[in-house]
Amino acid sequence: MIRVVNVAEKLSQIREYWSPHIVGTVNDMQVKLTKLKGEFFWHHHEREDEMFLVLRGELTMRLRDADRVIRPGEFIIVPRGVEHCPVCAEEVELMLFEPATTLNTGNVRNERTREQLKHL
Amino acid sequence: MIRVVNVAEKLSQIREYWSPHIVGTVNDMQVKLTKLKGEFFWHHHEREDEMFLVLRGELTMRLRDADRVIRPGEFIIVPRGVEHCPVCAEEVELMLFEPATTLNTGNVRNERTREQLKHL
Repeated sequence: MIRVVNVAEKLSQIREYWSPHIVGTVNDMQVKLTKLKGEFFWHHHEREDEMFLVLRGELTMRLRDADRVIRPGEFIIVPRGVEHCPVCAEEVELMLFEPATTLNTGNVRNERTREQLKHL
Repeated sequence: MIRVVNVAEKLSQIREYWSPHIVGTVNDMQVKLTKLKGEFFWHHHEREDEMFLVLRGELTMRLRDADRVIRPGEFIIVPRGVEHCPVCAEEVELMLFEPATTLNTGNVRNERTREQLKHL
């Protein structure tokens, strides 16, 4: 069954920060939604590029050369291998587009690692 | 250089309907922006799933079983092999996520086929 997905409706089901939820699959890529607040930590992904499309709020992506500020209607693609650290003082709603193999914490495993993501 | 991309700014550069422009690459997938108005035609993609994220306007995706109406903040993923025909009475602005190998007209080649897409 091919369904129309309403992004706001899916976001309203997310209660936990830093926990990506899968809302679609496009070949070997996944579309994910997540809410962020506070500071993540430096990590990278060995093989996966990651696209961050900001839907609400203001996301700062720390990169080793300089910070990038991403506002609603803007996106950034962090290429594989590039260290990054997402930070936001206030809540951010985000759409992620990345390979299905992407682990949220990349080369790091800690209490924020989500091995099995929920489908919404 | 890792840049922040402003979607509205990129869309403002698109003057032609039904002509996808590349605004990013995520592994072997591409992020494209396009403006639609009127009726395309029935086609399918042999190997590529396609995600249509509506940014402005109202898109009708004709499928063989029934039409789907996709509004701003909604998306649909048309799996490979599935015949579809996008239609819109008024202008629609759209973000596409799909494999880099995707030809806009799928299994059909006609005057609307765009072999080489522009990068914005």
